[in-house]
Amino acid sequence: MISKKLSFFTESLGGLLHGSPDLEITGLAPLSKAVVGELSFLSHPRYISQLQSSRASCVVIGKPHEELAKLRGAYILCDNPYVYWAKVTQLWVEQTKAKTQTQIHPTAVVDPSAEIDPTAIIGPLCVVEAGVRIGAGTLLKSSVTISRGCVIGNHCILHPGVVIGADGFGFASENQKWIKVEQLGAVVIGDHVEIGANTCIDRGAMEDTVIEEGVKLDNLIQIGHNVHIGKHTAMAGCAGVAGSAKIGAYCTIGGGAAILGHLELADNVHISAFSLVSHSILKPGTYSGIFPIDNNSNWQKNAATLRQLFSLRERIKFLEKNNNS
Amino acid sequence: MISKKLSFFTESLGGLLHGSPDLEITGLAPLSKAVVGELSFLSHPRYISQLQSSRASCVVIGKPHEELAKLRGAYILCDNPYVYWAKVTQLWVEQTKAKTQTQIHPTAVVDPSAEIDPTAIIGPLCVVEAGVRIGAGTLLKSSVTISRGCVIGNHCILHPGVVIGADGFGFASENQKWIKVEQLGAVVIGDHVEIGANTCIDRGAMEDTVIEEGVKLDNLIQIGHNVHIGKHTAMAGCAGVAGSAKIGAYCTIGGGAAILGHLELADNVHISAFSLVSHSILKPGTYSGIFPIDNNSNWQKNAATLRQLFSLRERIKFLEKNNNS
Amino acid sequence: MISKKLSFFTESLGGLLHGSPDLEITGLAPLSKAVVGELSFLSHPRYISQLQSSRASCVVIGKPHEELAKLRGAYILCDNPYVYWAKVTQLWVEQTKAKTQTQIHPTAVVDPSAEIDPTAIIGPLCVVEAGVRIGAGTLLKSSVTISRGCVIGNHCILHPGVVIGADGFGFASENQKWIKVEQLGAVVIGDHVEIGANTCIDRGAMEDTVIEEGVKLDNLIQIGHNVHIGKHTAMAGCAGVAGSAKIGAYCTIGGGAAILGHLELADNVHISAFSLVSHSILKPGTYSGIFPIDNNSNWQKNAATLRQLFSLRERIKFLEKNNNS
Repeated sequence: MISKKLSFFTESLGGLLHGSPDLEITGLAPLSKAVVGELSFLSHPRYISQLQSSRASCVVIGKPHEELAKLRGAYILCDNPYVYWAKVTQLWVEQTKAKTQTQIHPTAVVDPSAEIDPTAIIGPLCVVEAGVRIGAGTLLKSSVTISRGCVIGNHCILHPGVVIGADGFGFASENQKWIKVEQLGAVVIGDHVEIGANTCIDRGAMEDTVIEEGVKLDNLIQIGHNVHIGKHTAMAGCAGVAGSAKIGAYCTIGGGAAILGHLELADNVHISAFSLVSHSILKPGTYSGIFPIDNNSNWQKNAATLRQLFSLRERIKFLEKNNNS
Repeated sequence: MISKKLSFFTESLGGLLHGSPDLEITGLAPLSKAVVGELSFLSHPRYISQLQSSRASCVVIGKPHEELAKLRGAYILCDNPYVYWAKVTQLWVEQTKAKTQTQIHPTAVVDPSAEIDPTAIIGPLCVVEAGVRIGAGTLLKSSVTISRGCVIGNHCILHPGVVIGADGFGFASENQKWIKVEQLGAVVIGDHVEIGANTCIDRGAMEDTVIEEGVKLDNLIQIGHNVHIGKHTAMAGCAGVAGSAKIGAYCTIGGGAAILGHLELADNVHISAFSLVSHSILKPGTYSGIFPIDNNSNWQKNAATLRQLFSLRERIKFLEKNNNS
Repeated sequence: MISKKLSFFTESLGGLLHGSPDLEITGLAPLSKAVVGELSFLSHPRYISQLQSSRASCVVIGKPHEELAKLRGAYILCDNPYVYWAKVTQLWVEQTKAKTQTQIHPTAVVDPSAEIDPTAIIGPLCVVEAGVRIGAGTLLKSSVTISRGCVIGNHCILHPGVVIGADGFGFASENQKWIKVEQLGAVVIGDHVEIGANTCIDRGAMEDTVIEEGVKLDNLIQIGHNVHIGKHTAMAGCAGVAGSAKIGAYCTIGGGAAILGHLELADNVHISAFSLVSHSILKPGTYSGIFPIDNNSNWQKNAATLRQLFSLRERIKFLEKNNNS
């Protein structure tokens, strides 16, 4: 069991500590579940009511909640409690991590021509093919596949089941049969990229598929060949991007959303969950396309009427014409 | 080749046998494909017409079809033919199963600190990390990953490629970059849970992600961190549940449906395939939100008009006003 | 580094060469990126403007672009430049392929009862269960699972993480609990089928799930039990097909599209991306059902109005009645 003084956190991460720096912290927990000895945080106003009753020994808070926090005991004041908390969790995990982890697990299948930084970790049952390069501090958890010639940057995390560099979906049609177009490009991934479980990024047809630094991809995402994703863009689970789409930097793509091929999204575009992007979006902003859910009988009536919507418009036009005449 | 007397089934499962208990059954088959020696069943009225012509040596049926069944030969009468049939398939598979299966396949990578019930089976190329607990009779087929500290109940089945306990998708935003929030919770799965191929269930941020007993998840499903799924809920393939959603018991979620984060679904809520749940649903019932499919030219006209729907409503209001004046 | 004379391509693939047959080709590249020594192609008119400025030493073109191609240097004239190019990439890859690949990788787990053609390749960390048959020239890349009794044809490619023959999602409901229906069928896959990374095809309940020859499935696709997919049909990433659906030959299914269970699609049916097929489609053609994306505030207004669409229709009817009276 780990135990760290409060001062350990503020010395590493800054913030203004109100309370004893020698107080021992034995765990991290949400306000509602924390017990004595644990550190917690308040970021979203939704949880203000939990602050007073929480048994946490110290809370990380921002300026707007300082008065409330004072009433209950020790706290760390900082600019952005959620960012501070993120760093607390990182510090904490660092303490608990096993100190000795084999660099390349003996069950991993690594081609001798792969260049793997000595600080990278290749977990059990991973496959790293010929010509692959993997950067410093990068972690392949387990059962991750990196196909020939792909490049993974520094400080990346690839979760179990990730497949990087499988063939893109490229076929020419001849006499109603599909002729395979061999996929000669690779995948190039920048630094600080995290990729969720069972997510797939296909290799390019001739040029490379590119994922820039700081991109975060959730689980079960499909990235087609020759896609380009700009830096610090985040995509939630089950999203899909078809071939040759170019997504800007600082975008967010909601869960289950899809982006058609050969489109372009500008920087700072935000796509709602479960929306299909069917044309390029060159102006920053939030975009949605979702059929609103309803109880089944209402939905049936509205959906059936939707199939006549165009003719309804014509009928309105006709009424307007009569109305004006 | 297996062969079992008809009495073997009725002695194990009950039901009223009309016909010779000594008749030998050599296989199970649907009505339309069964040959002499095979057992079949009739549940859905859709298949009544196949009953008469079937060559099955015996059929499992319910009361409404007894008269018809009598006309053709042996049958087993029971309350719920599909449930009875499910149990027949289980009995049958039990006979055919290899009697000696290694408990932990030599190619599995199992941390010595994991507690695995001696009746559980860990298939080839699975990864079981530190502190994991796996219950009695549970089966990890192959290439299944259970991350550190996760708990799997008794009599569960996890199909190939399942990933339990990868990090939830948690990041704080600082200067337009994403700061990782370490995921300190785990995943806790109850008894009799079945999880389909390549499905992912993320570990909680601080508390655990919870899947209650009897839940059935199909393939390629994504369950975000801190989700809670109530007992005996079933979800079809490609569905997704975002973080911290709470789904009740006895729900069904259709294929490809998605549930946004932090929502709540009551018990006995049924979501149609391909619908997005964007707000909590606290009343049992069936809910849908699907754009009806149409031939492409009709769809184009209706979809284009849909983008003017709000203004069409205003035009109707105006017409009504004029009409009334 | 490989180098091949231009004549090598035309002797293998036909086409009319204008230029020196002895010109050495050292790589393949798109028009915009090609350097001296590289072969390129022009198929889609979108890229005509790149033809003149390209530094490629030779281009594959069709009749409509011959005059333009003449102005810049060597070219190969053929009927269908994209099909020709596909075959060029195949020739090229054949030259670069490692000549000696182990047939069954030592880390693969292959049941002794599996029948594997001596020209098939089973990559690292694959699982091939009892009774499986795998045809000539078929390639299982890595971490592919083929469950008991499934059959894979000749010249198939299965990408990493593919799961063939996991249990279909079959349960009977008894007292609000799910009783497993054992899945006694298998999966039968024809020749020349390609299956993308992490795609799943479930085994049949009693009969087999069938994928006919020449079918191409992209990544992260879900195929339910007892589905039948006709020859040369192609499905893009993240698509899903529910149990017992029957899809014809020569169909295309867009990315993220879904097909409900027990439906039938005729030959030559084309489903747009992200559309749900909720009823059988017996007439060839293109079908869509997608909520058009819009900026968020427009979408909100239109989506809210959509929930009143049926009543709007009633209001229009009323106005029409008054208008006519």
